[in-house]
Amino acid sequence: MRVLGVDPGLTRCGLGVVDKSGSQALTMVGVGVIRTSPDLALELRLLELEQGILEWVEKYQPDVIAVERVFSQLNVKTAMATGQAAGVALLIAARAGLPVVMHTPSEVKAAVTGSGRADKKQIAQMVQRLLRLSEIPKPVDSTDALALAICHHWRGGGDAKLATALAKEKARLTKARVSKVGLI
Amino acid sequence: MRVLGVDPGLTRCGLGVVDKSGSQALTMVGVGVIRTSPDLALELRLLELEQGILEWVEKYQPDVIAVERVFSQLNVKTAMATGQAAGVALLIAARAGLPVVMHTPSEVKAAVTGSGRADKKQIAQMVQRLLRLSEIPKPVDSTDALALAICHHWRGGGDAKLATALAKEKARLTKARVSKVGLI
Repeated sequence: MRVLGVDPGLTRCGLGVVDKSGSQALTMVGVGVIRTSPDLALELRLLELEQGILEWVEKYQPDVIAVERVFSQLNVKTAMATGQAAGVALLIAARAGLPVVMHTPSEVKAAVTGSGRADKKQIAQMVQRLLRLSEIPKPVDSTDALALAICHHWRGGGDAKLATALAKEKARLTKARVSKVGLI
Repeated sequence: MRVLGVDPGLTRCGLGVVDKSGSQALTMVGVGVIRTSPDLALELRLLELEQGILEWVEKYQPDVIAVERVFSQLNVKTAMATGQAAGVALLIAARAGLPVVMHTPSEVKAAVTGSGRADKKQIAQMVQRLLRLSEIPKPVDSTDALALAICHHWRGGGDAKLATALAKEKARLTKARVSKVGLI
């Protein structure tokens, strides 16, 4: 199974692709970050992000997308931008009929380090170890995206086929419902 | 010029289309609301909303989209959902190369009633009067969307052609830049 982890953000959106089949070890397939310039208008930043994530989905053909659930401890402006970036990833998944799951930062920390209160450095070291990387990927957003993908493999890996079938069915029903949306 | 006003929301997203050319009076062309069920997964609600707004854009072919700027006085969960709904409208505009402008609630109130602190009822009555409607559209989200469109006509109506040209150029530049996004 192939998981695309997305650490949402407008300035930097981390992306990490991790494979695992059966009892085999985790394998990193891709890692990187999409940046959009704060000088651009918000709608163009969202468009750049959408096109960037779409390229990753097309290139890596993930079975599942795992997105970090956004939280409120950030300031409202940052939370809003992060939420909108997460929304773009959710939309892309729904359009493609791909299952998409959100994990909280503490779920990710607990899955990767065993502790829900691990710090960034500890997470990065575990990601490096679990994926047998020669160095820690930079920036931290890309490491976080890999951690998300690992978290998903370990928490919800078993039911990928079922999840895909459900997501496709849900998308089909949604399209049927949407086609009935009335216009005045 | 034709403006599509969008009062963003996931449970109810208000939409209103208002025309005005030169010194002519404002004319309502369409009004309504897109609803998505709270029982659906977030990604499917965003997808329904996207498809719904797209239908409006295709049907009414607006020159500009005006979206209400989301604020922080709501609770964080509501603000996040509203922000994501606004993000969908922004994305649709950017993809289509349509100019999109955000107006704050107090700009809308001031434009329609003359006071930035008008209440909902006062706004609804002015919308009804300005558009010469036999009754006030329901629910309030649809009236708010009409108020947004009216606000846009009055605040930024003159430069529609320029705005369209700029938006198209920006979208073109963005596409050029996006095509260079590197994948590892």
